[in-house]
Amino acid sequence: MAQEYPTKIQIQEGIEMLLSHTEKKEAEIIETESAYGRILAQEIKSQENIPPFDRSPYDGYAIRSVDVASAFHDRPVTLKIIEEVPAGHAPVKEVGPQEAVKILTGAPVPKGADAVVKYEDTSFDEKEVCFFSPVSSGSNIVKAGEDIKKGEIVLHPGQVLDPAAVGMLAGMGYSRVSVYKKPIVKIISTGDELLEIDSELAPGKIRNSSAYMLKGFLGEWGLQADIYGIVKDDTDAICSAICACMEDADLVITTGGASVGDYDLVLEALEKAKARVLFWKVAMKPGMATLAAVRDGKMILGLSGNPSAAAAALFLLGIPVFRKMCGRENWEVSRIPVCLPDGFPKGSPGGRILPGTLQFRDGQVCINTQKHQANGMISPWSNCNVIGLIPKGAGPLEPGSIIEGLYLEEG
Amino acid sequence: MAQEYPTKIQIQEGIEMLLSHTEKKEAEIIETESAYGRILAQEIKSQENIPPFDRSPYDGYAIRSVDVASAFHDRPVTLKIIEEVPAGHAPVKEVGPQEAVKILTGAPVPKGADAVVKYEDTSFDEKEVCFFSPVSSGSNIVKAGEDIKKGEIVLHPGQVLDPAAVGMLAGMGYSRVSVYKKPIVKIISTGDELLEIDSELAPGKIRNSSAYMLKGFLGEWGLQADIYGIVKDDTDAICSAICACMEDADLVITTGGASVGDYDLVLEALEKAKARVLFWKVAMKPGMATLAAVRDGKMILGLSGNPSAAAAALFLLGIPVFRKMCGRENWEVSRIPVCLPDGFPKGSPGGRILPGTLQFRDGQVCINTQKHQANGMISPWSNCNVIGLIPKGAGPLEPGSIIEGLYLEEG
Repeated sequence: MAQEYPTKIQIQEGIEMLLSHTEKKEAEIIETESAYGRILAQEIKSQENIPPFDRSPYDGYAIRSVDVASAFHDRPVTLKIIEEVPAGHAPVKEVGPQEAVKILTGAPVPKGADAVVKYEDTSFDEKEVCFFSPVSSGSNIVKAGEDIKKGEIVLHPGQVLDPAAVGMLAGMGYSRVSVYKKPIVKIISTGDELLEIDSELAPGKIRNSSAYMLKGFLGEWGLQADIYGIVKDDTDAICSAICACMEDADLVITTGGASVGDYDLVLEALEKAKARVLFWKVAMKPGMATLAAVRDGKMILGLSGNPSAAAAALFLLGIPVFRKMCGRENWEVSRIPVCLPDGFPKGSPGGRILPGTLQFRDGQVCINTQKHQANGMISPWSNCNVIGLIPKGAGPLEPGSIIEGLYLEEG
Repeated sequence: MAQEYPTKIQIQEGIEMLLSHTEKKEAEIIETESAYGRILAQEIKSQENIPPFDRSPYDGYAIRSVDVASAFHDRPVTLKIIEEVPAGHAPVKEVGPQEAVKILTGAPVPKGADAVVKYEDTSFDEKEVCFFSPVSSGSNIVKAGEDIKKGEIVLHPGQVLDPAAVGMLAGMGYSRVSVYKKPIVKIISTGDELLEIDSELAPGKIRNSSAYMLKGFLGEWGLQADIYGIVKDDTDAICSAICACMEDADLVITTGGASVGDYDLVLEALEKAKARVLFWKVAMKPGMATLAAVRDGKMILGLSGNPSAAAAALFLLGIPVFRKMCGRENWEVSRIPVCLPDGFPKGSPGGRILPGTLQFRDGQVCINTQKHQANGMISPWSNCNVIGLIPKGAGPLEPGSIIEGLYLEEG
């Protein structure tokens, strides 16, 4: 009793179907020091002004600007030094008329003072300091809250905690922080032709390479991906592997067995596992042989056995889904026009996906692609941070043609 | 007895001085599965053709093209099916005249056949298959070595092992690989004003935020960075901390105490530690208060106590040095013209460093910067992947002005 499901769908349809079955994971509290790259699950408000006090950005003298209003290079004004305030220490005295407080970088500005004059602009001994020009009120004072105001919302749920965000959390006193748990992915490689990485080749056999590539990409995108291993072309074996993986994974990815042949068994295995197939085959090249299913709220993505086709589906269909699953606020991939410096030699009735690297030539945004691209090849996906979309029905494209590109920027 | 060293040097001079004291670390052999992001220390030659045999990219029938030369939609040619070859299995028979072998995606093409015709383009039963048009010799056969030829140099020392590179290593049977050891960095935060991340604020005090930001950036760039902790403004204490860190670190980074004030003690501590100062103060804003020293072939970078100034020096002076230290073949940062969409309001006699994010507007490469940038602020460094360089002596810049940018792409 075969299920009914859409087939040969458009990429965007596939993304939307997958997104409608995608939930982010629950949050967990972790040490801020180990939160790099994680996705924030709470709103971060500053409980304090940062800096918490009016502060001097230089070594110098805190004064009342009115006292040096008449200072001139040949008629300096001399003030009495009443205290010295290093960084990390609080001033004790208030600055009165004709008085100055020696102040070090980062130290709080004492009461009474409304300006700081740098060392280099004064002449001084231990008791007195001379000023040679007037200063305006507020000069060289970093006001309390200049960086972050008390009560300000500084970070939002769904933001990636990059090094700067972790630094800000530390500065605001958040030693622990709520982040979304990482989705767990298990990768199953199906195919009688597959050998382990350390095996000698045998007739008709190739080594498993896709799983290692997929694991790496998923890891870079913030998921916890593990390689389950190789499973033979056998429906029961594939079904068991999928069921075993679904016990602790949030997402199961298979490669191979998603095409149309007699030995393409992932579809059968999914039906046997009582998973609901969402779609089979997507109008993309490479990557047509892609299927998706759900069971108990968990997703199974069946990718092609060809590494480049598997990567294409992972990037085009997967990235928005993985971003949402990780808890990111923005999961859409930006689209930008990119120039194809060398054109594209072949006509392409069905459109074509071209992985590449951003390059800037004479201020123009270009996609640098590997000359030779084939379904079995992994190398075109090295350093991929942009994917060119050769449109359906495009003829050969001239060098310098502009096409749409997916820009896979971080953050 | 003070040392002599250059001061107020240009950024490029600083980079060159540092590079001349930078060595990559020795190599180590690790499991390929854990090599993501590491820098390759060996040349990788393929010991085999990939694919290792002529292979079918589709499910179909392997035939001699000459046999279907006369096929036409209303005059099909019928051939006898003599064998079936699933992926992962070797063909036993040779294809002779009027014979066809059923072949599954990824399976080796049998001897005698010079073309594969897809299932969809045939009509078949278990014994015979009909063809409706001629095919050219070589059709639908992926030749052995099409992806990678035996003996081809596939990866070079100094390359980053991104997910695609790890996949390629797996496919070529490299289960272990030689990579450069990660440089170890210790971060010392000096300053009486600094509190730990989980401390309550006290008068004149701020929390240590720079160390957490610096650790994160260094980690992203492939170094192993650890936070040593906070050290008071005391020459002996700073000297002891530096000496302790140098025991197992390849690079020691300090923050604070690198300016000009009475309590800026890192320079004194370095002289006490018998380190040789390479330079003190760099012509950059922010980041002027930067110093560098070496001892026993190890480097010490003294950064500003202001987070943004510390980040500026880390990015501009540090990145090329860290890349070389990690063993990368290319350590130079690319320079590209970028547009400042909102201009830059202030004249800048000494030049100015503007962290930002790449943005594409109407095909133009722009730098998106935070409106409010100050030395104490960390937030402008969030998502920084490009740094605008406002040139020395530039007046206020009009919206749309083009400036030079450092593009911090990966790889």
